[in-house]
This record gives sequence, structure tokens and C-alpha cells, in this order.
Amino acid sequence: MLLKKIYVYDSTLRDGAQAQGISFTVEDKLKIVEKLDALGVNYIEAGNPGSNPKDLEFFERIKKIEFKNSKVIAFGSTRRVGIAVEEDANVNSLLKAGTEAIAIFGKSWDFHVKDVLKTTLDENLKMIYDTICFFKGKNKEVVYDAELFFEGYKSDPVYAMKTVEAAYNAGADSICLCETTGGTLPNEIFEITSRVVEKFDIPIGIHSHNDSGMAVANSIMAVQAGACQVQGTINGWGERCGNANLCTLIPNLQIKMGYDCVPEGNVDMITSIARYISEIANVMVDERAPYIGKNAFAHKAGMHSDAISKNPRTYEHIDPELVGNKRIFLMSEVAGRSAVLSTIQQVDPNITKDSPETRLILERLKELEHEGYQYEGAESSFELVIRKVLGKYTPFFELREFKVIVNEPSIEGVNSSAMIKVNVDGQDEITAAEGDGPVNALDRAVRKALERFYPQIGEMKLTDYKVRVLDSNSATAAKVRVLVESTDGKEVWTTIGVSTDIIDASWKALVDSIEHKLIKGGNM
Amino acid sequence: MLLKKIYVYDSTLRDGAQAQGISFTVEDKLKIVEKLDALGVNYIEAGNPGSNPKDLEFFERIKKIEFKNSKVIAFGSTRRVGIAVEEDANVNSLLKAGTEAIAIFGKSWDFHVKDVLKTTLDENLKMIYDTICFFKGKNKEVVYDAELFFEGYKSDPVYAMKTVEAAYNAGADSICLCETTGGTLPNEIFEITSRVVEKFDIPIGIHSHNDSGMAVANSIMAVQAGACQVQGTINGWGERCGNANLCTLIPNLQIKMGYDCVPEGNVDMITSIARYISEIANVMVDERAPYIGKNAFAHKAGMHSDAISKNPRTYEHIDPELVGNKRIFLMSEVAGRSAVLSTIQQVDPNITKDSPETRLILERLKELEHEGYQYEGAESSFELVIRKVLGKYTPFFELREFKVIVNEPSIEGVNSSAMIKVNVDGQDEITAAEGDGPVNALDRAVRKALERFYPQIGEMKLTDYKVRVLDSNSATAAKVRVLVESTDGKEVWTTIGVSTDIIDASWKALVDSIEHKLIKGGNM
Repeated sequence: MLLKKIYVYDSTLRDGAQAQGISFTVEDKLKIVEKLDALGVNYIEAGNPGSNPKDLEFFERIKKIEFKNSKVIAFGSTRRVGIAVEEDANVNSLLKAGTEAIAIFGKSWDFHVKDVLKTTLDENLKMIYDTICFFKGKNKEVVYDAELFFEGYKSDPVYAMKTVEAAYNAGADSICLCETTGGTLPNEIFEITSRVVEKFDIPIGIHSHNDSGMAVANSIMAVQAGACQVQGTINGWGERCGNANLCTLIPNLQIKMGYDCVPEGNVDMITSIARYISEIANVMVDERAPYIGKNAFAHKAGMHSDAISKNPRTYEHIDPELVGNKRIFLMSEVAGRSAVLSTIQQVDPNITKDSPETRLILERLKELEHEGYQYEGAESSFELVIRKVLGKYTPFFELREFKVIVNEPSIEGVNSSAMIKVNVDGQDEITAAEGDGPVNALDRAVRKALERFYPQIGEMKLTDYKVRVLDSNSATAAKVRVLVESTDGKEVWTTIGVSTDIIDASWKALVDSIEHKLIKGGNM
Repeated sequence: MLLKKIYVYDSTLRDGAQAQGISFTVEDKLKIVEKLDALGVNYIEAGNPGSNPKDLEFFERIKKIEFKNSKVIAFGSTRRVGIAVEEDANVNSLLKAGTEAIAIFGKSWDFHVKDVLKTTLDENLKMIYDTICFFKGKNKEVVYDAELFFEGYKSDPVYAMKTVEAAYNAGADSICLCETTGGTLPNEIFEITSRVVEKFDIPIGIHSHNDSGMAVANSIMAVQAGACQVQGTINGWGERCGNANLCTLIPNLQIKMGYDCVPEGNVDMITSIARYISEIANVMVDERAPYIGKNAFAHKAGMHSDAISKNPRTYEHIDPELVGNKRIFLMSEVAGRSAVLSTIQQVDPNITKDSPETRLILERLKELEHEGYQYEGAESSFELVIRKVLGKYTPFFELREFKVIVNEPSIEGVNSSAMIKVNVDGQDEITAAEGDGPVNALDRAVRKALERFYPQIGEMKLTDYKVRVLDSNSATAAKVRVLVESTDGKEVWTTIGVSTDIIDASWKALVDSIEHKLIKGGNM
């Protein structure tokens, strides 16, 4: 049995879209809405139809969706100063959105009322009251967002409380205290939220930002003070440093603290949903993010990983499966035998810690690490090493030769070209490609040559490319380590190459990446 | 006047190096240590000489450094089960490191003692006691790290307290409560830390991990409960989800809460130090990180930025200059003038903040930043930019052309060759060189061509070469940023190049490096 109900209010599509580098199309938004409903959030704040006319199209489309768990919310401000609510353009856009529920934000901070709105404290109270009354008259559920509430309370607690009272008296269904600048620390959040909860007998919410690194902590403190609505975004996206990260907050509240946030059994969707929505937004997942990051349950140090492979409870705060993530053991010079074993067993489940093959693989690993390979972060290359040692590897192609030429000045705007000749099952293929730089030219050339034999290579693309010099005493002649990250839309994998020649190191990583795709694609 | 002293304990080089994708060379570590000392942290945990023999070389090198603010700490575990402390190899490695202070970690959780150490609860207490006594006998300052203290306390509070008591009785100078799994929530941290603080009259510390997104919040709660030592890492690097981020924690404690963490006036170094250390580690800065991220004070066009440009207090929790960051308006950027001025004055001391040249340089800087240049770790290239704007620059040579060819398979063991033609004062020089990889071949060729005119180029060599992809969505065709570090035995300097072509980016950085040497060598 879970403790009291917490209403999860997602603002990925509204406050999340304020983040730098994020902009959703209508199609993106529809895909995201579907996932949020599947996860089971209570509210989906879908946009601000007043400030963004494009949103109206989206609200039209969304009307046709049947939701299992979520209510869609249109977000907007109170009426403007000195006009009747019925005549306010924003208010009318909100109405047009046609949602069952509406969020209205108003000012709580006296300084803002005077300095930004340039009106009287009384008029601000009327703006809040009138606007909420208007929407209650239209039978909408109304969430009142008290903007800058904590700053307001610290400046003038009596007035800040009056703004909430105006919303309450107008019939707001819930009141969300917004920590808009992200500057308040947890103990203050607890204290101030407690006072509001004591005073008003309707659901109180918390909306927090991460400018002090406190967005999730502040949300938890507010819940402990009696709040029962938490606003946030997937992956914590939002203006500046972002909003409360629902992918951290939901597991904390539900798994750790026993609150009822999303339907039971749904928390384990959080990792895949965070990754899916990142793909839609075309934003890199923060791999060290709590719960959902690839590194969240990654173990490196020898001692830790030995203890964990015996009993995960030793160094893990929760079972990764509870959030749909998985434990990984990073291969590195400090990793022990048991860390390597779990990867070996993915290739051949019959091999044990004491099999002679395990010793052979560890020896090979040590040799390769000595050459500068480092397989933490490049598990796909490590899997290929294991296959090679176990004899479970047949090359997909043979390189006959390549030649890469870089010209300065460029020739007709092209600075690099690559010629390549490969052989697949006795058939030669020679081709060439141009590119921005030698690695890009070589990457294009090898895919072009191989796609004839393996069309599934067309599904994959490189998503990241990193270079690190290993021995800085010899600088440009030093060994370089190249990491290449690839995806086929379903899986993401990383491969590695090491050489004194950056082209050769890149080539090795590219070959591993292609071979990984071909193995997973069932070619072996 | 700042409130009570908080001892900042940095573990970037030890726990930070446990992060995936981070591995420091000895040279990297020396550079980082210098910056941490300049920032003014009290302790620098520099490595674990017992588990990593490479660290001993580093501890040798570090002995020659004179520190202004920091004490260096070598980190290791208590003696092993059932042997005399004098015979323990780890303990002896720790001693060999020769630091003034030592951190010893031991077990607080009964379950770990029985299940991981496989010994008795009593023997564990003796291990703690013996090891600390041993180091106190050698006149070391000893920090005792109580590993998994909170888990231990929740499992058996009496035993957990006994482990701390053993450390206290042995003469530990401070005791740090380690929240090793990152699973504890703030209110529990506050409660449990309070009990320890009440009981022991020595400094109590907190070491927390971010697996629940709480590392910084938990550190603050511990300080509010009476702890006065905070352990963490730059940028929050560390195993899994990372450690408490000192770049968030220090501003929170010092600016917001009034504690005395680093020497007054030093908090504004935090942004540049976070960025510098990221460059060294070749890790992307999280641009939405609190305080130090580029987006931390970024305001999107609209209501917020209008209000902010009139009065920043409206939506900003602190003045960005307090942490050495700057406010940006995403539509119309305003760069920080005074930050750049000190570099300008190195070229021309007569230029002031209000000189028209300053504006011109800032405009050029903005253009270059837009292209992907970032001068935080490449001051020598920035100096060249300033010279070019001020007309204090004459090119030392003109590139006519180069051509780089990479062959696979190699031809007689050589995979790359470069032909180059330069012109100096009307005289052409054409030459060629071979190398390990295209950049090395090009580097050799250009030096060979220029040494005839500028023999002092023979004194310089490249010491580091780093590549970073800027826009990972386009992978191998993305823009790359190359950083080249050079030395002539007297000075070390870093230069930068940006291009979609790695050869071109390297070329730009190489040219800047050579020009810097020629300018400093008195050729201008």
C-alpha cells in the first residue's frame, strides 16, 4: 500500500520547452503526450496558447486523444491590468484551447506587482480573483500558480498570503507555490509551504527550479510539509538550470518514500520514457542522471564491483530494475574479474569465473589496456574482443586499402576525400567519398562500400565522436584514443580505437561500430 | 563577516576520477591541484597510492609545490583483517606518499563488516582504531571517512556510533560521515548527522553522492545539523551519478547562507575553474549546471528578460558576477567586459574598460565564440585575437598550400606524409615530412619549413593535443575544437583551433602556437 496520493504535474511541453536548444513540433508534442499518459502523470501542461499561437493547432489535435491517466492543461496568466477579464486576449486563447483544466499564474511578490506590473497591490488581487472566477464559471478545473511565491513571502508574508487567498476565494481547485528563480533553500521551502498548507484546505503544489541545485530536494521538502502536487519536467529540462526533474522526483517519492505518484508498476517505465523523450527532443541524455542515466548503476572500482556482484545491496541504493535501468560493470584497470564476467556471459552464458576462457580474456584485456584501450564506456568493442578470444567472430569484410587526402586550400570547397577498397565474400568493392575532414570522408566511404552487401548499415548513424591523447609527452605523435557512439534508433553503442594515427584509431572504432550493428542485426 | 568556517575537502582527483570517462595524467593532476589551491579549498584528496601505483609518482612531484591554502591528502583504507597495521601494504603506500594529512576509510555498516570484510564487529573496530593510531604516531593529520555511515546507522545505530567512537578514541582529527550509495534523503541526513555532532567534540564532515539527486542538498542539511567539513568534487564528477558538486555547494554555503568556505573574494573564480578543469579532463561542461553553466543566467526573450534588463533582481537569485559567470540574453547577448579586460591590458596596458578597442575586441570575441571558440583554456590564442584587432600583429609566414596523405596499409611503415609550402618575407620554402598520423606529419612539415627562418622554433615542443566534438548530432562531420599545449622549457602555453575538419582545426592551433613562441621570443 502506498501512502497518500501525490499529483504529478508535467510541464515538459511548456516550461521544458523554455530550455535552450529545445523546441518541439506539434508531432513531437503528440508523441510525448502519449508517453506521459502511459506513465500515468495526472496533469500534462501542454502549452501557453496566449503567447504561442502555434499551440492552438496542437490543442485542436489533442482533443481527439483518449487519455487513460492524464488531464491536459492550458497555461496562461491572469488578465492584464485594468481591463475586464472577458476582454483579455490571453484569457480568450486559454478558453479556446478547450482543455478540461487550466493553469493561471499570478504575482505573489509585492515588488513585482509594483515594479513589473506597475499596478497596485489591490488590483493584482483582483486580477487573480477575476481570472479564476471566470474559468470556474466555465466549469474548468483551475490550478493557480503563485509565481515567485517564496520570494514574495520573504519580502511581505502578509501580502503573499493574500494573493493565495484571492485564488482560494475565487474557487481555485489547487494552488501551486512556484519557486521561480530557483534560489530558495530546502529549510525555507519546508517552513513556508507548511504555513500555506495549514491555512488552506485545498491541495497545495510545488513548482521549483534548479538554480541552486535544489529543485528535487525542494519538491521533497514541500511534500514533507504537506504539499500533494509536484510540478516538474522530464529530464529536468527548463529555463536556465532547469526545473525539478520528474525522472528523479517520482522514484524518490514513490520508491523511497512510499507516496503514490504514478499507477503501481509504472515507475519502471521511467528510464525508457526519459530516453525516448530525449530522442524526440534531440537532446543528449545526461548519462549520470539519477535513476535513468547509463551510469546510474555503473560500477568501476574493483572493490565495489566485487562486493556488488556478490550482493548488490552492498553499494546500490535501489534495485535498478525498479526504474527500468540496469546494472553495468565498467571495464577498467581497477575492475576485478567478476565485473568482466557479466559481459562475457552475455556472449556465452556457460562461461564461469573459473573457466580457462575467462583467464584468456582477462589477459587479452590487460594487453589491450596497456596499449591504451579502455573499455569502460566502450562495451561494444569489449564484446567484440570477447568474441575474438572465444572464436565466436567472423569478419564481415576485409579492408584491402584506403587512401585519405587532405588539401589546403580546399578544392571546390572540399578539403578531404577518401578512396576505399573492401572485399566481402570474395567480391571486391572500390569506391570513394568526400567529407568535412578526413574522418568524415573515410566514414562515408566505408559505409558506401559496405551498404551494397549489408543494407542495414543504412539504419545506423554516428552520434558522437571523441578523441583523447594518451601520452601527452609526445603530443601530435602520441597515441590517441577515439570513442565513437552510434545508434540505429533502437540501441546506442560505443566503440573504441587506439593508435598513434588519429585516422587509424578512428578507423578501428568505425569498424567495431559497424560490426556491432551487423552482429546485433542477426548476421552472426 | 562570514559565519562559521566550513572546511572544503576536494576529491576531484580521487573520487572524481572514478567517474566514467575521466582519467587524469600526472600532468593533468598537477594543473588541477594548482587551481584548487588558488581557489582556496582546505584539503585536496589527491589519490589512493595503495590501489594505484601510478599515484606514487604524482605524490613525489607534488612535494615540490608550495601551497597557499590547501593540504594534500592521501586516501586509503584501514588495515586489512587479521594483520598488524605495520605490515599492511596499503598502509605503507599511504605513508610513502609523504603527505601531511591522511584520509582513512573504514566500515560503519554491520552488514558490510560481516558480508564483505567477513570478519567480526570487534575486529572492524580494532582495524579502525589501529590504523588511525598508527598514523597519529607518525604525526599525520587524520580524517576518518566513515563509509556507508547512514546505511550503517539505519541498520544498527549503536554499532555505527561505535565505529566513529573507535576513530575518535584513536585520535582522528575529524570524522566524515559518508553517504556512499547516495540513497539517503535530506531529513534523515539532518537527523543522523545531528546525533553524531552532539556526541563528538571534533569536526564532523559530510561526503555525499548524487544517486537520488540529493548530493548538494544533503551536504547543506548536514552543515545545518552542525557538520563543518564538506567533501565533494569539481563539477560533481564521481562514480555513477557523481559526488556533491562543489561548484554548486560552495556558492550555496558562502553566498546564500553566509558560511566561510573559501577565502573571501575567491568564490568568483568558481566558473572559470570549473571550465578549466573540464578542459583538462576533456569533459563537456554541463551548460545548465547551477552557477557555472553558460545557461545558468541565460534569459530567453520575452517577459523575463524584459523585466531582468530593467532590474535583474526580478528573476535572478544572485548576481552572476558573484560566481564569475555572466548574464546572457539569448536574443541579444551582452558579454562581460571586465572579465576580458585583464587579458587586453597584458597586450596594451593603456586600454581601459571604456576604450573603443575594448568594444571591438568584445565583438570579435562574440563572433569567435559563436563559431565554437572558447578561450578559457587557450589564453595564448586569445592574446593573438587581441593583437589582430589592435593591429599589433604581423604574420610571421604565409601558407601557400599543404597536402596530407594517409595510407592504409602503410608504405614502408609510414602511414602519413605532408607536403607544405610557406613564404617568409618573399622567400618560398617547400618541404615535406612523414609522421604517425596526419597531424603529426603536418606538424613536422611546418616546423621543418619554418626553422630555416626562425631557428628558435627548435626550442619548442608540443606537450598535449586534445580534440572535442562540438555538435555531436552530426558526429564525424561535426565541428571539432582542438587544443594544443606547447612548451619551450620555460613557459607552457595553450592554443585553439575550430573547424569541421580536424586537420584544419589542428593547423590553426599549431599556427597560433608557433606565433606565440615567435612573439614571446622577441620577434615582434
